[in-house]
Amino acid sequence: MLRPVNATGRQLLAAAMRREREALQISQEALAHRAGLHRTYVSQVERCTRNVGIDNIERIAGALDISIAELFDRAADE
Amino acid sequence: MLRPVNATGRQLLAAAMRREREALQISQEALAHRAGLHRTYVSQVERCTRNVGIDNIERIAGALDISIAELFDRAADE
Repeated sequence: MLRPVNATGRQLLAAAMRREREALQISQEALAHRAGLHRTYVSQVERCTRNVGIDNIERIAGALDISIAELFDRAADE
Repeated sequence: MLRPVNATGRQLLAAAMRREREALQISQEALAHRAGLHRTYVSQVERCTRNVGIDNIERIAGALDISIAELFDRAADE
């Protein structure tokens, strides 16, 4: 049975990540490469189907050249 | 072999979580109960031995009566 997606945290992260990525004009693949993650994984995080861990949140924020705090701060502005 | 702890993200979260918990004057056990998590899990997050997922980060922030953005914002003030 598909676990009910816990929206808020995942949606916040996905929206902020996509916005920052598009602001840098880079693809999911380029972001994945920067973060040392697989393209599919980045796509799943942006589609809220991943309960992404703090270690990968940090990698993603780093790949977007911002801190974790900034990533969630900007997410809160959505 | 113990995976090398990725400090920054885990340490930020652990420090902010502990500070907010102590500001509320509640124990790890009380926080765990509020968040619907096990006491041991909360203790592991505060000791940076858990790659905690976004869903549980959200539960912890909620149990501390703050948003995820606020949790990491305050972490950045450390």
